[in-house]
Amino acid sequence: MGTAEKRYGEQLQKVRVSVGISQEELADRAGIHTSYVSQLERGIKSPTLGVMIRLADALQRPVWEMLKAAESSRNG
Amino acid sequence: MGTAEKRYGEQLQKVRVSVGISQEELADRAGIHTSYVSQLERGIKSPTLGVMIRLADALQRPVWEMLKAAESSRNG
Repeated sequence: MGTAEKRYGEQLQKVRVSVGISQEELADRAGIHTSYVSQLERGIKSPTLGVMIRLADALQRPVWEMLKAAESSRNG
Repeated sequence: MGTAEKRYGEQLQKVRVSVGISQEELADRAGIHTSYVSQLERGIKSPTLGVMIRLADALQRPVWEMLKAAESSRNG
């Protein structure tokens, strides 16, 4: 996986922690496996659009906002 | 596939046409199959983050901007 997946994973973890829920709780809310959430946060899987939207909905954030934040972390 | 993929596909096609290139040219630039571009534009596949970034780079648009535009088309 490339740096885009790493940045997305970091952003996913950051938002999840700020919302105050565990990987298990996020997985439950989004209807995906906990191990998959863990792999995404570590940037070792490239999520599909469908999965990104379910995660964004579970975290009550727009999916584009999460990607924009991940993108900006290119320079910081 | 859900409505998110449909909206993304419509947005992808819109941007590709505004840039003035064919599905073949976009596929070439992004390094993916033409048939896959066609499936994405019709919303019958859910692209991975990696593919969305390659397409966005090929169209010289930020990936989040394309998703934001796709998202706004929910209400229009």
